[in-house]
Amino acid sequence: MIVIMMPGTPEQEVMSLKRRIEDKDVRVSVTKGDKYYVLGLVGDTTAIDKSKIEANEHVSRVMKVQEPYKLANRLFHQKNTIIDVSGNTIGGDKIAVMAGPCSVESEDQIVEIAKSVKESGASFLRGGAFKPRTSPYSFQGLRESGLDLLKIAKEETGLPIVTEIMSTDMIDRFVQDVDIIQVGARNMQNFELLKELGKTKKPILLKRGLSATIEELLMSAEYIMAGGNENVILCERGIRTFENYTRNTLDLSAIPAIKKLSHLPIIVDPSHAAGLWWMVEPLAKAAVAVGADGLIIEVHNDPENAKCDGQQSIKPERFDKLMKDLNKLAYIEKRYVYDPLRV
Amino acid sequence: MIVIMMPGTPEQEVMSLKRRIEDKDVRVSVTKGDKYYVLGLVGDTTAIDKSKIEANEHVSRVMKVQEPYKLANRLFHQKNTIIDVSGNTIGGDKIAVMAGPCSVESEDQIVEIAKSVKESGASFLRGGAFKPRTSPYSFQGLRESGLDLLKIAKEETGLPIVTEIMSTDMIDRFVQDVDIIQVGARNMQNFELLKELGKTKKPILLKRGLSATIEELLMSAEYIMAGGNENVILCERGIRTFENYTRNTLDLSAIPAIKKLSHLPIIVDPSHAAGLWWMVEPLAKAAVAVGADGLIIEVHNDPENAKCDGQQSIKPERFDKLMKDLNKLAYIEKRYVYDPLRV
Amino acid sequence: MIVIMMPGTPEQEVMSLKRRIEDKDVRVSVTKGDKYYVLGLVGDTTAIDKSKIEANEHVSRVMKVQEPYKLANRLFHQKNTIIDVSGNTIGGDKIAVMAGPCSVESEDQIVEIAKSVKESGASFLRGGAFKPRTSPYSFQGLRESGLDLLKIAKEETGLPIVTEIMSTDMIDRFVQDVDIIQVGARNMQNFELLKELGKTKKPILLKRGLSATIEELLMSAEYIMAGGNENVILCERGIRTFENYTRNTLDLSAIPAIKKLSHLPIIVDPSHAAGLWWMVEPLAKAAVAVGADGLIIEVHNDPENAKCDGQQSIKPERFDKLMKDLNKLAYIEKRYVYDPLRV
Amino acid sequence: MIVIMMPGTPEQEVMSLKRRIEDKDVRVSVTKGDKYYVLGLVGDTTAIDKSKIEANEHVSRVMKVQEPYKLANRLFHQKNTIIDVSGNTIGGDKIAVMAGPCSVESEDQIVEIAKSVKESGASFLRGGAFKPRTSPYSFQGLRESGLDLLKIAKEETGLPIVTEIMSTDMIDRFVQDVDIIQVGARNMQNFELLKELGKTKKPILLKRGLSATIEELLMSAEYIMAGGNENVILCERGIRTFENYTRNTLDLSAIPAIKKLSHLPIIVDPSHAAGLWWMVEPLAKAAVAVGADGLIIEVHNDPENAKCDGQQSIKPERFDKLMKDLNKLAYIEKRYVYDPLRV
Repeated sequence: MIVIMMPGTPEQEVMSLKRRIEDKDVRVSVTKGDKYYVLGLVGDTTAIDKSKIEANEHVSRVMKVQEPYKLANRLFHQKNTIIDVSGNTIGGDKIAVMAGPCSVESEDQIVEIAKSVKESGASFLRGGAFKPRTSPYSFQGLRESGLDLLKIAKEETGLPIVTEIMSTDMIDRFVQDVDIIQVGARNMQNFELLKELGKTKKPILLKRGLSATIEELLMSAEYIMAGGNENVILCERGIRTFENYTRNTLDLSAIPAIKKLSHLPIIVDPSHAAGLWWMVEPLAKAAVAVGADGLIIEVHNDPENAKCDGQQSIKPERFDKLMKDLNKLAYIEKRYVYDPLRV
Repeated sequence: MIVIMMPGTPEQEVMSLKRRIEDKDVRVSVTKGDKYYVLGLVGDTTAIDKSKIEANEHVSRVMKVQEPYKLANRLFHQKNTIIDVSGNTIGGDKIAVMAGPCSVESEDQIVEIAKSVKESGASFLRGGAFKPRTSPYSFQGLRESGLDLLKIAKEETGLPIVTEIMSTDMIDRFVQDVDIIQVGARNMQNFELLKELGKTKKPILLKRGLSATIEELLMSAEYIMAGGNENVILCERGIRTFENYTRNTLDLSAIPAIKKLSHLPIIVDPSHAAGLWWMVEPLAKAAVAVGADGLIIEVHNDPENAKCDGQQSIKPERFDKLMKDLNKLAYIEKRYVYDPLRV
Repeated sequence: MIVIMMPGTPEQEVMSLKRRIEDKDVRVSVTKGDKYYVLGLVGDTTAIDKSKIEANEHVSRVMKVQEPYKLANRLFHQKNTIIDVSGNTIGGDKIAVMAGPCSVESEDQIVEIAKSVKESGASFLRGGAFKPRTSPYSFQGLRESGLDLLKIAKEETGLPIVTEIMSTDMIDRFVQDVDIIQVGARNMQNFELLKELGKTKKPILLKRGLSATIEELLMSAEYIMAGGNENVILCERGIRTFENYTRNTLDLSAIPAIKKLSHLPIIVDPSHAAGLWWMVEPLAKAAVAVGADGLIIEVHNDPENAKCDGQQSIKPERFDKLMKDLNKLAYIEKRYVYDPLRV
Repeated sequence: MIVIMMPGTPEQEVMSLKRRIEDKDVRVSVTKGDKYYVLGLVGDTTAIDKSKIEANEHVSRVMKVQEPYKLANRLFHQKNTIIDVSGNTIGGDKIAVMAGPCSVESEDQIVEIAKSVKESGASFLRGGAFKPRTSPYSFQGLRESGLDLLKIAKEETGLPIVTEIMSTDMIDRFVQDVDIIQVGARNMQNFELLKELGKTKKPILLKRGLSATIEELLMSAEYIMAGGNENVILCERGIRTFENYTRNTLDLSAIPAIKKLSHLPIIVDPSHAAGLWWMVEPLAKAAVAVGADGLIIEVHNDPENAKCDGQQSIKPERFDKLMKDLNKLAYIEKRYVYDPLRV
């Protein structure tokens, strides 16, 4: 941490601040520039509260040097984390594809789509039971009975289930019936939820908030990990910018950035990013080329009658073709999307 | 709602879509342009799901004409909503000032600050018991015992209490002990929380999310109102932009915009917006000048030792002077900050 | 400047970089942390190219401590700069109001509006002759004959003229006929234009770019000042964000920020910010309350037939009332909008 | 164009507006909803000024239906535009790679890099002679003598030259000596420059502004095309967002969007987007996978001593390996980066 003092700060004030910081077991080097003093803090500065130093009226600015996350930091954990869900890995050579409808609508619908995406090589079934909707008047999901239908689809196909949780009171049910618990973009900083999920051992799919920085995403992962659950999968799903041709702007630079900063796996959601079905294909390819560990893709057998997000869902035939293309792309990166014997 | 078809769409596809929309009891007028058809939907289009129409492969774009919120819409409720909390109003001629520390730290601290801000003319005491923090290693608030201390401060001063809720399991306790329940920016789209709060009758202070549009803020208010609780106070607290000299960019244009679109009261938080104590004063003045119904301001008697957000808290003396200036400004707008007899 | 090395960088590489930096007459202090080295650069670091250091493969990050602007920096020039245009000041106690139509359309139009805004207390006449338009098919301004008409309006009213320049080949004409040369938001980083304007002595009204940071705005001012022209007036006119209810988001926090960082005067353009005529009034008031040194406001006698930006122009009657309100607001801040004897 | 009237507007005002619009040879259909009137404008609405209608006090909002660009619009020009520069195509099956240093520094430097990138399969040599720099104290390029050196490099290698123009007075020189004239992001809306370039026949490489929407980029292309020069190549180079781990956020969704909206070729600049040399490789791959028609990449033989942007330049060896990978990726899309016989 670097502290820049206001120009003209008396030396005794600088020394007084230095002593107070040193009381926290951090070394402080003082450098006197032409116009102002600069303090360099060395050691474990995680106990230092940046805002307290900023509250000092002689302080001009405080700059962090060290990343504020530890458990998620590659600096202290060089090897990639690989998460294993009943033999299906995320974070290794295999590119994990999670596919399925925006929301579970009926047994026939979810079972049919599950069979179809499995046939095309998907490793996981996604499907929303609890749906966060901007409008209280929109379809809110089948809720608990949606979870029942997902279980049936899992029994029929063997595909592990990924689905979104929206409140802490559902954690027990999710731990029992779901394979990967998804935290949606709008709940990325629902800290009470993150804390409770940290007490479980379930893999958590943590989506980046619409306006969350990469650092904030990693800090939210840190919340879960600090509770004892290190099975966190990150997900880039588009950020909010001034451009509104697409619903969000998919930030693919975040993939190599996160790979450098953290050991956690990171996947991409091309469906929610653009919000346009015809962009899913090129964005999914770009995600694989940029180094993502997986994809989560909305597939629906009848998008026009889907109860939500039909505009961003692709049909099973298109998904099947896409998977073949992705597998070729993955091969260039010495990775694969589905087992070669499958084809 | 306006539906723009893809160029070259056959007429029968246009008519087929028209019929399907009309099945929802909405009138559809079809206009044939040079290159494409345009459909105009008239009537109550709230039952129409925009994304389903967009999922039609012949549809190029869908544009909303009507605002998607009803209960929060000034169109159906011309008069300003005035919320009364034990005689303290928000939304009328009086500009409501809520002041106090970022977090409750001790009985002495909260009682001393409460007395001081009351003396300066504040109408409400703010203070965090449950604190949403970016880092799991930061102080998380005194939690339930923080609520106990707020109650003591209320007993000592008579000031009604405003404090933030973070999860549904605390609602009963908040309904009993708190006067205005605050929903923080990070929970603006925690829909499960909004739904539960809609079942109470408590005034809710709903903060705008960091990247929420004005429309989304009003839709979150709609969630609470649709549940039966129409006592919603909105709060502009800065949005996330590319500029990072200030922590957020205070969007004061949102005040006249919301006054036009909605009948709900709207207040401003100048402390969180900039994140810099020396900006609180000019931004608070600007908020009153632009037409805000109130302010929520962080005041701390010892910012440098505050357990959180000391860098954006002002000292009681400064707050006292600010209140006098605000009252003069309010007078020009035929409003007032504190009762004239107080001075 | 602070240089953070990659974890694991060998000491000899650190020392080699240190020596290369010291060759530029800058002192370098080396601090060894637990995981990496940190270098602190002290002295005049303006000769150090941040990007060259970042290109070193052992460097993790480089952080600037000192602001990169000198002539515009309040650190080296404590007193407010006051610019005097034939007795009309900008940057002192008087709040300078520049008013007039988006574009000059005819002699009658510009003379009538000029008389009217003068009557209401404006100090300067604004009016576009060269218009930057998003579409090549929109009205591009009367160009040179527009300048002729502005001169006539000036002769009739005595009001100094503010108008926008768009290319270097017009500088001689502008220097001769215009009182304040405006550089529009889209040309804020047209460095060839800034350099040429730096060679004149004319006051320059430099508008903030749509996505320019405060620092970049000050760096563009520095371009003009480095050429020898210190008469720079800054202008906040809204930045581009995700919110699109308003055309841009007026960043009023930039006013106190710039007042702290620089000695240059800063004014506000409420018309272009929101792009909505009914928001001009509240935003203008907020600008005065937050501490702006002036305003530039679009006034048109027939907005519905204006050749551009009619949607954000206010009518003369409304402007007249606004000026009276602004004067009252200014009085609270011990400033004034027009001479007291005028009323 | 759709015009939404304010609720409560008297019918005669609606009809009066209708007649005024019809005077511009546009048909107007009037629909009466429950609360307000909606006007639909059909026909060639390019002569209609949106802002004039918005200036009408009875108008609530105006929404555009038709894209405001014509010459750049795929609707009126279905086939992809392919630009041919001495046999090197941009926009066809070949993915055009433009490579070279940020700035031309010396004859040895530019000739050596030119030979090297040619050897690796690049089709064009890029190199800055006139450099737009945020700071007036930074290296501003060799200017005209830089152009001389580029000519020498072209003579030595046969590679056509791409370099940036910054003002209209250099157009004659550029037309004579340069193969593709680049308009930088900061000049994307320097309309005087665009107009003058529209009078030439040279291919123009038009970079997207930092905060320009896709529509605005196409409108700037329209400026050049409306002047008579249809040889426009678009370039996505990152937009400004709240995320600042990377210098800009590369918006790869813009590639399929522009392919749908326009027939013009679009390339990607991964070097400027991230501003980090180690991100160039994954982003370049993603650009090819998403469907870009080309890449512009900074290559320097000694990045640490580069006069600008060394932090984002890759070394020739790395570039050579990247080109081989890109060629494999292109093959999957039935495209190619360099001629197969070359390997």
